[in-house]
Amino acid sequence: MEIKSATQEKTGLIACWCGRIKALPRKFKAKVTEVAQKTKKIGQDDPRRIVHSLRVGLALTLVSMFYYVSPLYDGFGGSGMWAVLTVVVVFEFTVGATLSKGLNRGFATLLAGALGVGAEYLASLFGEKGQPIVLGFLVFLLAAASTFTRFFPRIKARYDYGVLIFVLTFSLVAVSGYRVEQIIELAQQRLLTIIVGGAICIIISIVICPVWAGEELHILVAANIEKLASFLEGVGVEYFKFSEDGGSALVSEDEKSFLRGYKDVLNTKTMEESLANFAWWEPGHGCFRFRHPWKQYLKIGVLARQCAYKFEALNAYINSDIQTPSEFQRRIQEPCTKISTESGKALKELASAIKTMTHPSSAASTHVENSKIAVDELKSALQSASLGKADLLEIIPAITVASILIEINKCIEKIAESIHELSHLAHFSSVEATATMEKPPQLLHRGSVKPVGDGDDDGDAVHIVIIVHGKFSDFPEKGNSDQAPKMSQPVEV
Amino acid sequence: MEIKSATQEKTGLIACWCGRIKALPRKFKAKVTEVAQKTKKIGQDDPRRIVHSLRVGLALTLVSMFYYVSPLYDGFGGSGMWAVLTVVVVFEFTVGATLSKGLNRGFATLLAGALGVGAEYLASLFGEKGQPIVLGFLVFLLAAASTFTRFFPRIKARYDYGVLIFVLTFSLVAVSGYRVEQIIELAQQRLLTIIVGGAICIIISIVICPVWAGEELHILVAANIEKLASFLEGVGVEYFKFSEDGGSALVSEDEKSFLRGYKDVLNTKTMEESLANFAWWEPGHGCFRFRHPWKQYLKIGVLARQCAYKFEALNAYINSDIQTPSEFQRRIQEPCTKISTESGKALKELASAIKTMTHPSSAASTHVENSKIAVDELKSALQSASLGKADLLEIIPAITVASILIEINKCIEKIAESIHELSHLAHFSSVEATATMEKPPQLLHRGSVKPVGDGDDDGDAVHIVIIVHGKFSDFPEKGNSDQAPKMSQPVEV
Repeated sequence: MEIKSATQEKTGLIACWCGRIKALPRKFKAKVTEVAQKTKKIGQDDPRRIVHSLRVGLALTLVSMFYYVSPLYDGFGGSGMWAVLTVVVVFEFTVGATLSKGLNRGFATLLAGALGVGAEYLASLFGEKGQPIVLGFLVFLLAAASTFTRFFPRIKARYDYGVLIFVLTFSLVAVSGYRVEQIIELAQQRLLTIIVGGAICIIISIVICPVWAGEELHILVAANIEKLASFLEGVGVEYFKFSEDGGSALVSEDEKSFLRGYKDVLNTKTMEESLANFAWWEPGHGCFRFRHPWKQYLKIGVLARQCAYKFEALNAYINSDIQTPSEFQRRIQEPCTKISTESGKALKELASAIKTMTHPSSAASTHVENSKIAVDELKSALQSASLGKADLLEIIPAITVASILIEINKCIEKIAESIHELSHLAHFSSVEATATMEKPPQLLHRGSVKPVGDGDDDGDAVHIVIIVHGKFSDFPEKGNSDQAPKMSQPVEV
Repeated sequence: MEIKSATQEKTGLIACWCGRIKALPRKFKAKVTEVAQKTKKIGQDDPRRIVHSLRVGLALTLVSMFYYVSPLYDGFGGSGMWAVLTVVVVFEFTVGATLSKGLNRGFATLLAGALGVGAEYLASLFGEKGQPIVLGFLVFLLAAASTFTRFFPRIKARYDYGVLIFVLTFSLVAVSGYRVEQIIELAQQRLLTIIVGGAICIIISIVICPVWAGEELHILVAANIEKLASFLEGVGVEYFKFSEDGGSALVSEDEKSFLRGYKDVLNTKTMEESLANFAWWEPGHGCFRFRHPWKQYLKIGVLARQCAYKFEALNAYINSDIQTPSEFQRRIQEPCTKISTESGKALKELASAIKTMTHPSSAASTHVENSKIAVDELKSALQSASLGKADLLEIIPAITVASILIEINKCIEKIAESIHELSHLAHFSSVEATATMEKPPQLLHRGSVKPVGDGDDDGDAVHIVIIVHGKFSDFPEKGNSDQAPKMSQPVEV
């Protein structure tokens, strides 16, 4: 009996294994298809990723071949290695990041090399026995002190890589065991190769389809404001629109996607900060000057997030089951819709002002004002509402939505203010809004930041045509007015 | 007249410059003092930073001296350089990060070295003229493909550094210009030095005051839950307490600090994710097993942030001017206070359960239940409220606060659920709650994550003493019950 069951078990196991092995090619094929699909998606999401990969390949091949073919160096026994190392480590996706790493590497190597030679000289004064002790002590001291400075937030943000290379080069030079003259020759060679490697990276990253961190930040912030706008407009149009039969209109899942777009805004802090840090390293490009007020984008980002937090609270009531609107709901419906849509339109205008790098149009201010008026209307509607018979519990969601909308309105005002500030700090060009059905130029829409609101539900919105004014009389700083005409051109950055 | 004014201007300029130069030492001193204070603060905030700096110094000195003194290598012309490089680049603050980088570096070097030798061999088949072309093509292909894989989120999170080193090593080996035998010898030597460097880093980072990424994540999540608890308790006690004379009690700025603590929770997503990634690399340590459910911490983190977003909305009403409470406000005051304080207490219990790695006490469930009951009370209070004469506009903030509190209550339930799930997944030990005034052991409070709620306003809270049950009959997986007694000991991790 036992033997029989053991045999059965064995047969079962074998069958199980056979099945698994047979399934292997199918599983493998499925896996390959999955990876291929993912790869395609990553490439399609942002084709610049493919370009970047090719750029890295090109830079590496160039520098490798240069040193491989060059008769100056006999293979990679020499310093050519450092050029390859530099290219691999320094080449980043954005120009700012590449510049930051390249410059950090160059200057840190220079400084640490000089200090290393000094240390070597100092140690040699202590005789053959004292030398390793002094060198060891110096390496310990410098490594510990430098590592500690990496905890300073400002150094961490901008010079982290420099400090790393500083420690590395100093240790290498100090403990190299060479005499001072040898070191100087070696250091010269090494510095030269690092400069060659770094220069190739920087040139390629600027010349071939450059990705500017500053521009990315600019696009990201504008896209975030647009996402907030889409949410508000969507809420205004969809949520408060009650259908004829008394219930509210049913919103399909597809239409609800705009209700989730703002969620991206909640988590862009880290990205915004790193982009701003990299942008700090970039030279002027396109319509961004060398010292573009990148910090102002971070301020706008903070306000946008505060607004998104309020949306998150609002969303809890919007996603809850919508019941038959009471008389009270009908009463506050109009001002609520108005606050929501007007705020949304104001944000759309402001986002478009950022994108086209023009002063926010007067339409933006008008929409903000309209929204404010709607808040007053809402308040008086609430004040005059008689709740004699209404069940308070039933209308609580409506009251909360109204109350949060009032708070959101305050937030929008702050965002508008900070974008106005940005337009002055960055010397955006002046525009005159003329009502027309022409589309505004979507100049900066490209790449990873997907176009938001291109041709969707704003058919009734008033669009603007940009007309450049030569005068900047209403600007705080007149000195930069010569930049204005350039900015108003369709910008190919 | 003109000459006079010019002279005056000159004298003015000179005086101005003199003043500046005289002020220089004072400014310099002020700057030095500022830097010294900052340094002190950074060190005091987390003394492990100082320890880490010393550890890096030690590792670097050790490896430098090993190669400097060792008769095996004649100075740093040899491969010793790679050991120094490895130490500088691999040594990170947490054990997980060091392991991740060290292992990535080791395996990537091995793999790329082998592939590089293959490439070299393949290229040699094409004759002297074809060789550079084939090599260049292979470098280009591999560099571009590898760089592209770095855009895959999963590879980015875990193997980013490995891919970098892979490209680096492959290029170096493929274009080294050496013959295959030479390369193998060189690669052996280089791999050995990398292993020595990596091993020194890993050993020092584990032996000398280790900072475990997993433990940091554990502490961070517990501290975040505590911050949420402090906010809720604070709001319950302070905001809803109206003073005798009819107005609400004034909350001093100092007391209000608890109202801001939760803001840290809003921005810990990136940190939680990177800690979870590093924790994945760590071996079992202290009371954390090798495959501790780190992902569950991320889930709790997401819920905690959702809760914090609601706090952010709530805060707008709490910070606004508190007016004389209407009759309505007095009516809902009690259930609101109860929801807030009971939710806060529940979170405190849950945070303490995470910290002590025990199953959430029944007190936590009781508090959650109490909070739910309070929600029902609030609802019926709202239902029965007669608003005949009350001005709706005046009571809107109170209604909104009540409404958001109801939403927060739902959030707290979800958090409680996810922490229960964690306690099962991670096989926390079982406890029996006994009412006593003894403090719970604050085992894991240490370092950068400041102790929250140590000895502050919870004097009336019921504390628990942990009693270990040998049986795990209520656990889903009995197999791991042998770990239980170990966990309940005061853990010195």
